[in-house]
Amino acid sequence: MLNLDFHPTGRHFLQIPGPSPVPDRILRAMSLPTIDHRGPEFGALGRELLGKVGKIFKTDKPVIIYPASGTGAWEAALANTLSPGEQVLMFETGHFASLWHRLALRLGLEPEFLGLPGAEGWRHGVQADMIEARLKQDTEQRIKAVCVVHNETSTGVTSDIAAVRRAIDAAGHPALLLVDTISGLASADYRHDEWGVDVTISGSQKGLMLPPGISFNAISDKALAASRESRLPKSFWAWDEILEANQGGYWPYTPNTNLLYGLNEAIDMLLDEGMDNVLARHQRWAAGVRAAVNAWGLEIQCQDPEVYSPVLTGVVMPEGVDADAVRKLIYERFDLSLGTGLGKAKGRMFRIGHLGDCNDLTLMATLAGCEMGLKLSGVSLAGSGVEAAMAYFSENPAPHVARPARD
Amino acid sequence: MLNLDFHPTGRHFLQIPGPSPVPDRILRAMSLPTIDHRGPEFGALGRELLGKVGKIFKTDKPVIIYPASGTGAWEAALANTLSPGEQVLMFETGHFASLWHRLALRLGLEPEFLGLPGAEGWRHGVQADMIEARLKQDTEQRIKAVCVVHNETSTGVTSDIAAVRRAIDAAGHPALLLVDTISGLASADYRHDEWGVDVTISGSQKGLMLPPGISFNAISDKALAASRESRLPKSFWAWDEILEANQGGYWPYTPNTNLLYGLNEAIDMLLDEGMDNVLARHQRWAAGVRAAVNAWGLEIQCQDPEVYSPVLTGVVMPEGVDADAVRKLIYERFDLSLGTGLGKAKGRMFRIGHLGDCNDLTLMATLAGCEMGLKLSGVSLAGSGVEAAMAYFSENPAPHVARPARD
Amino acid sequence: MLNLDFHPTGRHFLQIPGPSPVPDRILRAMSLPTIDHRGPEFGALGRELLGKVGKIFKTDKPVIIYPASGTGAWEAALANTLSPGEQVLMFETGHFASLWHRLALRLGLEPEFLGLPGAEGWRHGVQADMIEARLKQDTEQRIKAVCVVHNETSTGVTSDIAAVRRAIDAAGHPALLLVDTISGLASADYRHDEWGVDVTISGSQKGLMLPPGISFNAISDKALAASRESRLPKSFWAWDEILEANQGGYWPYTPNTNLLYGLNEAIDMLLDEGMDNVLARHQRWAAGVRAAVNAWGLEIQCQDPEVYSPVLTGVVMPEGVDADAVRKLIYERFDLSLGTGLGKAKGRMFRIGHLGDCNDLTLMATLAGCEMGLKLSGVSLAGSGVEAAMAYFSENPAPHVARPARD
Amino acid sequence: MLNLDFHPTGRHFLQIPGPSPVPDRILRAMSLPTIDHRGPEFGALGRELLGKVGKIFKTDKPVIIYPASGTGAWEAALANTLSPGEQVLMFETGHFASLWHRLALRLGLEPEFLGLPGAEGWRHGVQADMIEARLKQDTEQRIKAVCVVHNETSTGVTSDIAAVRRAIDAAGHPALLLVDTISGLASADYRHDEWGVDVTISGSQKGLMLPPGISFNAISDKALAASRESRLPKSFWAWDEILEANQGGYWPYTPNTNLLYGLNEAIDMLLDEGMDNVLARHQRWAAGVRAAVNAWGLEIQCQDPEVYSPVLTGVVMPEGVDADAVRKLIYERFDLSLGTGLGKAKGRMFRIGHLGDCNDLTLMATLAGCEMGLKLSGVSLAGSGVEAAMAYFSENPAPHVARPARD
Repeated sequence: MLNLDFHPTGRHFLQIPGPSPVPDRILRAMSLPTIDHRGPEFGALGRELLGKVGKIFKTDKPVIIYPASGTGAWEAALANTLSPGEQVLMFETGHFASLWHRLALRLGLEPEFLGLPGAEGWRHGVQADMIEARLKQDTEQRIKAVCVVHNETSTGVTSDIAAVRRAIDAAGHPALLLVDTISGLASADYRHDEWGVDVTISGSQKGLMLPPGISFNAISDKALAASRESRLPKSFWAWDEILEANQGGYWPYTPNTNLLYGLNEAIDMLLDEGMDNVLARHQRWAAGVRAAVNAWGLEIQCQDPEVYSPVLTGVVMPEGVDADAVRKLIYERFDLSLGTGLGKAKGRMFRIGHLGDCNDLTLMATLAGCEMGLKLSGVSLAGSGVEAAMAYFSENPAPHVARPARD
Repeated sequence: MLNLDFHPTGRHFLQIPGPSPVPDRILRAMSLPTIDHRGPEFGALGRELLGKVGKIFKTDKPVIIYPASGTGAWEAALANTLSPGEQVLMFETGHFASLWHRLALRLGLEPEFLGLPGAEGWRHGVQADMIEARLKQDTEQRIKAVCVVHNETSTGVTSDIAAVRRAIDAAGHPALLLVDTISGLASADYRHDEWGVDVTISGSQKGLMLPPGISFNAISDKALAASRESRLPKSFWAWDEILEANQGGYWPYTPNTNLLYGLNEAIDMLLDEGMDNVLARHQRWAAGVRAAVNAWGLEIQCQDPEVYSPVLTGVVMPEGVDADAVRKLIYERFDLSLGTGLGKAKGRMFRIGHLGDCNDLTLMATLAGCEMGLKLSGVSLAGSGVEAAMAYFSENPAPHVARPARD
Repeated sequence: MLNLDFHPTGRHFLQIPGPSPVPDRILRAMSLPTIDHRGPEFGALGRELLGKVGKIFKTDKPVIIYPASGTGAWEAALANTLSPGEQVLMFETGHFASLWHRLALRLGLEPEFLGLPGAEGWRHGVQADMIEARLKQDTEQRIKAVCVVHNETSTGVTSDIAAVRRAIDAAGHPALLLVDTISGLASADYRHDEWGVDVTISGSQKGLMLPPGISFNAISDKALAASRESRLPKSFWAWDEILEANQGGYWPYTPNTNLLYGLNEAIDMLLDEGMDNVLARHQRWAAGVRAAVNAWGLEIQCQDPEVYSPVLTGVVMPEGVDADAVRKLIYERFDLSLGTGLGKAKGRMFRIGHLGDCNDLTLMATLAGCEMGLKLSGVSLAGSGVEAAMAYFSENPAPHVARPARD
Repeated sequence: MLNLDFHPTGRHFLQIPGPSPVPDRILRAMSLPTIDHRGPEFGALGRELLGKVGKIFKTDKPVIIYPASGTGAWEAALANTLSPGEQVLMFETGHFASLWHRLALRLGLEPEFLGLPGAEGWRHGVQADMIEARLKQDTEQRIKAVCVVHNETSTGVTSDIAAVRRAIDAAGHPALLLVDTISGLASADYRHDEWGVDVTISGSQKGLMLPPGISFNAISDKALAASRESRLPKSFWAWDEILEANQGGYWPYTPNTNLLYGLNEAIDMLLDEGMDNVLARHQRWAAGVRAAVNAWGLEIQCQDPEVYSPVLTGVVMPEGVDADAVRKLIYERFDLSLGTGLGKAKGRMFRIGHLGDCNDLTLMATLAGCEMGLKLSGVSLAGSGVEAAMAYFSENPAPHVARPARD
């Protein structure tokens, strides 16, 4: 059997911003025997899943579950709502926004890419006023959709989606609002219905604590109506046949059954904890990690405290330090994976994931690994981030901990 | 946790033609911790996988591994090689051939659907002479691809792909040959290179003994060349970016890591056994099952012994017997899942899967369940299929069994 | 990792009378992380376990759970109640009764071994009248305990324990009644309190469907009183310290935590099914297996239908046939383990286990393996056991099957 | 299924001095199907295990593997070598030495308990000179065995066993040397043959990284000879029948098969790493933890640096601080289990386990949890232990780390 344990003992610390560590409880659920996806047990499972998955997206509308990883759900959102050559307005918040832009190009759409100038775009969130201004110019209403990333995984910025909705409304523009919250869902506050999102795109391997392989489209009535006019060719991604089969708890083609077992477990875990608690947990961890970065005297990639991500924190290296060399040292010495800098940020930053199946001590271990690794790499630190995080976590206890008293 | 054990004890017998039972060894591999798909261990795993997966397809050419279930790989094969409105020639062998035909329509292609008249088409294999004749008519070479199903899962017919290749060549026609062997791979003889297939489509949940969620495109040089001209929009399915990232053992987007752990284990299991042994094992099981069906005096759906499937056997019910009622009784009384009749065969037949992680006694249990269920349903049987299968398996021992001697 | 899969595919059929196949649900429970056996979670688990384990023994009295396999619990029962040189009356029902007799000798007791003459003793149950007669002779009451095996695993005989109780009472004798139901518990009817048993000995790897490693002493008030006078040296097995620590849900030394996770799951599974259903299930399977043996024209080891075991059936070979050679062939050809003949029965019989995590088709597979193996070994059979068992199982449906309706 | 996850997310840190965290690789091995312990695969496994287990004890002599937890192996060592009423000389190093003393009393032996006066005995190792002096007094050679604990789990002291051997030899005394290294084996240096130990007692749930349930007696020729004269009653623990059955790789009664799968995996993991590396790893972790305790300005329970344990460190609380209240807070706030003070040390100290399946960051997390918990409990600390440990681990890299280079 595959041996992934390169250190002789101990568990690897996977603190990248997704895939996040998968709880044993979910791995155990995924190891149940595969069943007939046309049999009655599967139908019962499917109906249960489809009945509760919306609670994670805060929607009463349909959520499509694809047996494919997240990039597929980007394609699905566009292919189901748009026609060849149509214009879409996208906003450059980082690497993943750029990838989605490229995907739109490949599908034969005409994406326009708004953004702040220079490197600034990657250090702030979506600028709703820029979108509003652009839509107001579009008097012919040729722009069919506005596409934004909620939690930009490459930078650690969580944009204000409600503001984007308000901007579209303020412009009186009929464009659809398509939002990628692949890395935000179930970690950062997200409200599909309340925020008037038309298609929400997400994936399994982040806040849902699953391995990759499942992705989602949550859809509004307006998006559903648009899908009936859309002329981009599609079959695997087509909503219509899936929605029809979903009525009975089934899929029109083979779903990935064992990952659905895991999804069922993940949703139960999250709802048992309570979504408010889930979100507060991530906010608290993020604050602890930022306390450490500040104590080190290093810059946080996100420049705007209003949109700090609760999911990950981008740590900018001082001039002359190769972030990937630091990551490599930390990985080899301390069995800790950190996220690399992507695209424009390559070599300039690393990313600490603080999401999903973690606890305070997991993060203390992570920060200790970072602090030792930074020092061993010759980075001069202003102070001890580990001390700062210990102080933060000690002074700000987790809101409630339900467990039996010890004698 | 999800409880799928509806009978109080004992293991469910999943004898549908896929998903096939997943060996514990593979479930165990899939429960390893998810790793960073941009880290060095993943790259090493990816390079190993990509280096050996071709042996299952009998090809030296690239094999694309998609983090999506099999229907996606149908779409991928068409989207990468064809342009909007192009003609393809498809052959109706059963339900899955029909679904692929419909998918081609949805993608905006112009599929032509050849086939034997009436119900006959679903009881025989692909008629290579019909394809040859049609291609010869196509003097303008407007047909860009011939699409056939190797092992038709809905009927239990395994078509002669080499004959289709010869037919295309005899017609002197440049059309690509696209073959679906989703349920044939690693159970029925298949030779991508030798048979001159341009795109082979397959999936994980049949002979590979994995849960669903992975699918494949094995591609020829000619297909690769065609992909550079193809104008169907695509991004998730696009070969070019995947092939580029695969150079290093990576994927351009998130692969489904834990299923890849399982794939790695599955390939090792198959290669350790030896592909010839794997194929002989399935042929022997199929012969034992057919001996039972013949003894019962029931008809086999496939009318042509040359193309009996080694993967599954379709059992036709006598007039007036609802196959699904029989299946339901067997399922409820004996904890055994059989395949339903699909499309035109609905209610007329059931399908026995005899593939993957089985052994002689698994199949004896299956046949005993069928025999008891048929009798309890009032079907009059000519004789004991169970006896016939015991005789077959006793007289035809498995070719070699490597195991330690017992004292 | 250890590879126990000697056949390339398929699951081994473990149809010995224990260890019985362990359900995945139990293996999964056993793979939870080991916890601090002095911490609060462990105490809660211990209290829950100790509160419900008695339901399996049908007792309100304490049940000691040892982190040791079953032979230890034999020793514990004697060491806690007796003093060096004391007399015990044992009854020879087979190999395991003989082993317990030898163990008593090694502990320095004076066991007397009653039994039917010659080979007969191994083909019948405990003869309560012989015990009564012997106790009546013991006017000085030097016999301190009567020791009998409930379900004799070596022969397939389940003795009438209530009758033994009546015999002791009829003799007006104060001897303790010690009963081994290692292979009977949770498969054959057993009632510690109602039958007036003083110490019940059992183990984990049979009807409880666990791996070996846990054993039990269920004790009466009288046994507890005797333990205060007992002078056999003991510490690990001593009830007093365990009972004291059990008050809080703990053990005086390290318990085997992960097997206790499995035990917790096993008890829940049995109680959810209902003990009456569990017992009826085993009786039905046993009847089906005996129907097969009868149809083959082979002898059942147990000569008295009143005491046929619901757990296993001993199948006697015709003169001149080596039972172990038959077993070896079946094992190598059909991946099926059967129980060997033990002690006096070596080479004369094999044993079919029909207990625990099985279902009708598991047993049909087992009988098919036996029938093919017997024929291939040249044993002449009177008829088809497989047919007989199919007829029995078809005509005698399992009493109730709670599962969702199929559409 | 049992839910042991009392915090909503994250993995519990089990840093008690045993049971130690069980690696997934071992849990996975333990979940293989239980097999027939009288079948050929089991024999092959048994022979392999018995052939390599001695390497962990550094012995060429037999090692008995019991399907019972460690306390049983204490009893076995005495019961196999001694007779009722015989004298043994034991040395009080802590709680576990005291428990063994009590066990000897219960078995009807006459143990003499040497030790340093007052609380001192629990803060130092075995005093070989005191043993030598006592043996020299025993001119009638009535003392039959010297019993000492190698690694005293209650205090964190690892005694010098070679010195005890020299003391016995210097006294010219024939007493057997019995050594408990339940918590020392596979973490602290141990040499059964070289040190002339007659019986080594150990268990599975410490350095071997297994769940509890297996224990060991490694025996010398002299011990084996003594066992032939020993008159303490025994059967389950008797070496003779086990040694005989072990010839073929079997046991005289049911072994705990699934834990043996785990043992097989554990031995492979340790031998692959190399025993010298295993020992160095524990020494390094212990030094890092002691650096932290020193920086906090707290006392280490062990007063003699020569015998600091590489397995655990006892941390003494300042006057007036209840160690268990600190532990409770740490447990509830930070999901971290520490060892309680046992016996005389109750409430005065807690114990940090640093053994088995850990790595540097696991220990950093543990120390961070301790430091936060101590401060939150109002304990005044001299400085940051976390910083001290980071400095130690940074300056003293693990000797070698075999892993693939990162690009």
